[in-house]
Amino acid sequence: MSVQKTNLSALNVKAGVSPQETISSNAIRQIKEFRKRQPSAQELIDGILTGNITALSRAITLVESTNPAHLEKATAVIKGSLPNANKSARIGITGVPGVGKSTFIEAFGKHLTSLGKKVAVLAVDPSSTISHGSILGDKTRMEELVKDENAFIRPSASGETLGGVARKTRETITLCEACGFDIILIETVGVGQSETAVHSMVDFFLLLKIAGAGDELQGIKRGIMEMADAVVINKADGDNIKKAQLAKVEFNRALHLFPAKKSGWTPIVATCSSLTKEGIGAVWQTISDYIELVHSNYYFAEKRKEQNLFWMIETIDEQLKTHFYTQPNTIELLESTKTAVQNNEVSPFAAAQILLDNYYKK
Amino acid sequence: MSVQKTNLSALNVKAGVSPQETISSNAIRQIKEFRKRQPSAQELIDGILTGNITALSRAITLVESTNPAHLEKATAVIKGSLPNANKSARIGITGVPGVGKSTFIEAFGKHLTSLGKKVAVLAVDPSSTISHGSILGDKTRMEELVKDENAFIRPSASGETLGGVARKTRETITLCEACGFDIILIETVGVGQSETAVHSMVDFFLLLKIAGAGDELQGIKRGIMEMADAVVINKADGDNIKKAQLAKVEFNRALHLFPAKKSGWTPIVATCSSLTKEGIGAVWQTISDYIELVHSNYYFAEKRKEQNLFWMIETIDEQLKTHFYTQPNTIELLESTKTAVQNNEVSPFAAAQILLDNYYKK
Repeated sequence: MSVQKTNLSALNVKAGVSPQETISSNAIRQIKEFRKRQPSAQELIDGILTGNITALSRAITLVESTNPAHLEKATAVIKGSLPNANKSARIGITGVPGVGKSTFIEAFGKHLTSLGKKVAVLAVDPSSTISHGSILGDKTRMEELVKDENAFIRPSASGETLGGVARKTRETITLCEACGFDIILIETVGVGQSETAVHSMVDFFLLLKIAGAGDELQGIKRGIMEMADAVVINKADGDNIKKAQLAKVEFNRALHLFPAKKSGWTPIVATCSSLTKEGIGAVWQTISDYIELVHSNYYFAEKRKEQNLFWMIETIDEQLKTHFYTQPNTIELLESTKTAVQNNEVSPFAAAQILLDNYYKK
Repeated sequence: MSVQKTNLSALNVKAGVSPQETISSNAIRQIKEFRKRQPSAQELIDGILTGNITALSRAITLVESTNPAHLEKATAVIKGSLPNANKSARIGITGVPGVGKSTFIEAFGKHLTSLGKKVAVLAVDPSSTISHGSILGDKTRMEELVKDENAFIRPSASGETLGGVARKTRETITLCEACGFDIILIETVGVGQSETAVHSMVDFFLLLKIAGAGDELQGIKRGIMEMADAVVINKADGDNIKKAQLAKVEFNRALHLFPAKKSGWTPIVATCSSLTKEGIGAVWQTISDYIELVHSNYYFAEKRKEQNLFWMIETIDEQLKTHFYTQPNTIELLESTKTAVQNNEVSPFAAAQILLDNYYKK
């Protein structure tokens, strides 16, 4: 029984063949050392560029760190990864809880790796700070994909603000791309502003639905339907197939009410089953068609440039506010000014001017 | 004929009665002087508080001025007006072009003045800079209201940004209130972000519609339907009455899909005709009911406090960005940094950091 088990391992030693002791102990020591000491930025870059998952994971941890001392190294690793990044297809996947995002990603991811693709699965979920990982946290729902050596799954960075989580995810995309992952799936929950953030960092945005959930109005209202390049109705299996077909007609009608997209792409509605795998291949075909189109009309590169600028400007806006509101002289004056504004003793604009004058003169 | 005309004038001199030369020439000189020279901030405040329309108009012109020298005086006038402001009902009115906003405001405004109210009509229309006043510009559509001495109509301030226009309108509200206007109507066009700005400065938000326009989805999508305290279907007259009744049922259904409002108010749908005046009185009754409710549950004061804070924070955000982007050392570095970001030579976050470090070290 014990022998049997050993034989199953890829690291087993064939009976009668002596292991090359020096080499293997050397290798073990190197691995142990690498794990123990903090690798330099250059070592991490070298590791990432050769597809080393340990180096990738460590670099992501660095990017996610809130320790200011890690910032410089993280910046250097990103800088070194950039020339080799930017070559993947980035796909955003959203849907309210219950549509089966995890099982869809499991089925879709396995399909992609079966085509020889390397797939990274990331998540943007600012609520994970509180709920300790509401999405992607439960890797058991992606049992097959977790074991797949061509897949890399990383739960959402935690952070107090969506901006912080989004920044970390976006830098993680760069690291994954440099590490050779050619498809990046970014999952987000169908609540709050996180869809808009994910939409601003992907090439293709996929909205996952189930038939008869009755949340169409929510999707329209919050602009998510408008962002979607494809609406995929999941769980189209068994008794659900008819309902899913009906939902497809309805979503098609709703999508046609929106103006044409700048990409030149007409959003499609499809059905699939993560259980039977029916329609999963067609989803990838759709995305491939999209990518071919936007490469041919140059929209792909144009959009990525726009997204880069968007994130630069967003970061500047956020930092300017953080700097202003954390200055001691602002903090000192803020509460009394707020009270005066609330009590109509000073106009909001005059109050803003008082705080700004105080801030700039420091 | 000439004598006849003279007799019609209120300033005519009765035959046989000598005019009091000294007094009348004194008064004329005072008026002329007031018109010619720039009145002081205190003179403007005094004028506004006694209901002087000339002083009000001049103060608004000061508030709208882009001349930095006028800023200090404008601020002083606002400060002097504040203790006497804040007592009106502020009503936002929106609707896409064609729903008959001007004729509705004419009919609604006349109804209010007939009840002894003093009504100020303002507008937020950032496009007016380009189109030279697309709304409220054509006062001929408010012929009766223009002549009404208890009504004051002021077209949209012009400005390059919505923020600028909104600020000017908000300060104008303060001046109008201090001048004794107890109802402030603020019109905006049903396009762009201007509804959100107006919604943030009014107590009651009225969405004007016509039957069968088919723009329901637009309203839901852009969140305007959700902001509305009342949806009023205009032009419910003649052949339109039946269609308007049907539309009323539909809008009622749509409104019920939204979550309950913090105000405790259930939005209503009504029909009216600016032509026959049918339903115009009921609109005012609805608004009065709303105001009674939100006074009794303290939401009225709470919301105004929130709005004051909102505008302070918005102004700070806007000014921080303006200051950053107009610094010579930012301008110097911005274009090359943008290019580097677009070409993936530097990550958006690193680029933002470079620009910010450069800005703060100055």
